[in-house]
Amino acid sequence: MIEKLSSEQRATQIAQLDGWQNVEGRDAIKRQFKFADFNEAFGFMTRVAIKAQEMDHHPEWFNVYSNVEITLSTHDANGITERDIRLARFIDEIAAGK
Amino acid sequence: MIEKLSSEQRATQIAQLDGWQNVEGRDAIKRQFKFADFNEAFGFMTRVAIKAQEMDHHPEWFNVYSNVEITLSTHDANGITERDIRLARFIDEIAAGK
Repeated sequence: MIEKLSSEQRATQIAQLDGWQNVEGRDAIKRQFKFADFNEAFGFMTRVAIKAQEMDHHPEWFNVYSNVEITLSTHDANGITERDIRLARFIDEIAAGK
Repeated sequence: MIEKLSSEQRATQIAQLDGWQNVEGRDAIKRQFKFADFNEAFGFMTRVAIKAQEMDHHPEWFNVYSNVEITLSTHDANGITERDIRLARFIDEIAAGK
């Protein structure tokens, strides 16, 4: 079973990500994304979906038109693990157009 | 500009849909969907996304793993219009495997 990051590891890792914030009242992180339109937003979601499936680690996410909000947490560990950080890093890269 | 359905039209149309409910505090309707897994859930979302783009009428939606919640409303009309009903009907059909 995968283990939660320690508070220190967690803070260090999150600081290296791009704009992820702690979710109030939950051990989870979230980030909001704004795209040009729905095509771009859903294209981004599709890239994340394929990666998530490959990692067997899935986001919680909300979309309306060009806006996407993604929440990451590892349910099995009841908190943030290395898997969340890896998925967040991938998401940051494609959001930045890399 | 597209017009809101009257209360009577709205009630009649919603009654013909499959499991859509009024959203409390908003002039919108929502339905929850449960799939076998993420692949099936996101495949469903992709079919809805393509239809939504074709109609130029987009859902608000939330997904976590095999669960999808869709909210429909027409922002331009500040309520439920024929467009929401048409999109809901399409969603019901593909959710039923038609």
